Amino acid sequence: MPVPTRIPEPTLLLDTRRALANLERMAERARAAGARLRPHAKTHQSQAIARWCRELGIEALTVSSLQMAEYFADDGWDDLTLAFPFHPGMRDRVQALATRGRMGITLADAAALDGVAFDVPVDAWLKIDVGTHRTGFAHDDPALELLTHALASRGDIRLRGLLAHAGHSYAARSEREVLRVHADTLALLAGVRDRLAAGVGPLELSFGDTPTCSLAETFPGVDELRPGNYVFYDLSQWQIGACGIDDIAVAMACPVVARHPERGELVVHGGAVHFSKDAMDFEGERVFGLAVNAADDGWGELDPDLRLVRLSQEHGIVSAPPERIAAIRPGDVLLFLPVHSCLTADAMGGYLCLDGNRIGMLPRTGEPR
Amino acid sequence: MPVPTRIPEPTLLLDTRRALANLERMAERARAAGARLRPHAKTHQSQAIARWCRELGIEALTVSSLQMAEYFADDGWDDLTLAFPFHPGMRDRVQALATRGRMGITLADAAALDGVAFDVPVDAWLKIDVGTHRTGFAHDDPALELLTHALASRGDIRLRGLLAHAGHSYAARSEREVLRVHADTLALLAGVRDRLAAGVGPLELSFGDTPTCSLAETFPGVDELRPGNYVFYDLSQWQIGACGIDDIAVAMACPVVARHPERGELVVHGGAVHFSKDAMDFEGERVFGLAVNAADDGWGELDPDLRLVRLSQEHGIVSAPPERIAAIRPGDVLLFLPVHSCLTADAMGGYLCLDGNRIGMLPRTGEPR
Repeated sequence: MPVPTRIPEPTLLLDTRRALANLERMAERARAAGARLRPHAKTHQSQAIARWCRELGIEALTVSSLQMAEYFADDGWDDLTLAFPFHPGMRDRVQALATRGRMGITLADAAALDGVAFDVPVDAWLKIDVGTHRTGFAHDDPALELLTHALASRGDIRLRGLLAHAGHSYAARSEREVLRVHADTLALLAGVRDRLAAGVGPLELSFGDTPTCSLAETFPGVDELRPGNYVFYDLSQWQIGACGIDDIAVAMACPVVARHPERGELVVHGGAVHFSKDAMDFEGERVFGLAVNAADDGWGELDPDLRLVRLSQEHGIVSAPPERIAAIRPGDVLLFLPVHSCLTADAMGGYLCLDGNRIGMLPRTGEPR
Repeated sequence: MPVPTRIPEPTLLLDTRRALANLERMAERARAAGARLRPHAKTHQSQAIARWCRELGIEALTVSSLQMAEYFADDGWDDLTLAFPFHPGMRDRVQALATRGRMGITLADAAALDGVAFDVPVDAWLKIDVGTHRTGFAHDDPALELLTHALASRGDIRLRGLLAHAGHSYAARSEREVLRVHADTLALLAGVRDRLAAGVGPLELSFGDTPTCSLAETFPGVDELRPGNYVFYDLSQWQIGACGIDDIAVAMACPVVARHPERGELVVHGGAVHFSKDAMDFEGERVFGLAVNAADDGWGELDPDLRLVRLSQEHGIVSAPPERIAAIRPGDVLLFLPVHSCLTADAMGGYLCLDGNRIGMLPRTGEPR
């Protein structure tokens, strides 16, 4: 259907054909690489969208919170990895999840299991810092051998292997840079895996970020891929070179509320509670979104003259050439691609598909349950 | 009660005594100024908290979206102002609200009502840009006279007056600067009001931002005050000088998940989907939150050695001195004051009061309804 031309409030549009094409393409890449695809659900956070993955033969999901694990377990997913560092406060809910299916946790601190025992076996992955320096064990951390042996000897833990996220691939600005990160990361991971496996037997490698999974042709030694953002992609991924503009599957429809030709700006309804405050540099300017043209069946080309340059809670300020402003009226609808689709989806809480169907997602962390 | 020492996930704590004291203090300031208090509900977004306002004698609310207006109307509020620019796509829902009680809209573009007629009278406020340059008519805009007369002659609009938000007071860094913004703003507004009222009869002035409403002693010529953030305050308001650290009524409890003493950092569960990505400069560093010490009955002093310096979706990276890191274990709970409580509350979706009670809030814009 065409995008709505009159809306009361900001609306996150989902082009399901694009999202399905993105999902299918990655499933094919994983098959070609001989790796299990365990997509990260943190981008869409939606049972409905995870079902599309299931229809492609995917049987396992990655999640980033306990609440997200429970939400997908409630929809029948029985092979989950919580790719966020475990701490003792998670123990009871992890154990409850492990009674419902295969449940994996991620260990990023040698003391994370101190005083913790599970009554049912829990899968464990050791987080390796492959250069992002967010969290994880350094590849040469001497604690790794001790920890690996300690875990291998526990009856309540099934040590699955090593888990890494090459988050520094997001700093890349070309396919070549992404592929260099990819090759370096896999070489480093394979080395750690071989060293540790010598003591405790086979260990798997779980690896994944949307830029490298979208661009690399081979994944030597990798057992499992965990990209997430690729379901929607966004301007950040486009800037990296991980997708084309036509692959981006979500766009925010924003009504124009005021025109300020004297300063070359429009005001739209669409602020920090809709887009989130993630920004990127585009042609020397800090932007929170770029416009796209409406099309008969959704949206098309980038319209880079209209840039979302400032956000407050509900307001979005759009820089625009005066001749464009002259043709726009209050109530007109502009479409913007988000900088970071994960945070935009989380801020919005649901999607309007172009076929008119509404899709919901995980409640927020603090909502009374 | 003391704050929890073991939690499974990030938790937004609300110290109701502090919030009630903040609400009472502002109600008293408005009484002393002889102005109606129409607090902005966009910070708390909660029917439960709005009821605390009602118990203080407050009968009118400000909201920033149609959905927020409907949510509070559902709880019996029958005098609402939507302090966000009206556009024609809002027409049907504004009219529905106007049949339930007194409903005010804000006009920030001379064409906002083109082609719009209401079947029941709607209050209208003209937005004046008093220096924030986000939206609103310039005080000397020649369109104002024409628009005022056009509105005064419509049967479906009750022209109430002028509405302004001195958002540029947020750039102030001292009480003196805030008070200068305040005096300049009120002088400018009174001038516009007197000029326009000469043609159409009495016009009210609605004014409000938390810094000036918290600090100014007098509000000459102002009929209505609309501060919102003051219910919780936050680090931004503290930095401006609008509140003390002890007035901040919300704090995020975050479990520690990993320690990185080699780079002077801790990792906590608490990221962009919990805090939002609003940052501020503190002692030359960009921070997303600062720690406070736990106390027997909530939290106390600032602990400025622990600073939330980077956020990804779920991770928070905390810079900390090595001797502090040495005393911390995974699962320990740290408390952080948010930079911007409005966006933090919106990201979390609810509150855990220190008495153990959970409070919910408005659903997100995109949630299927």
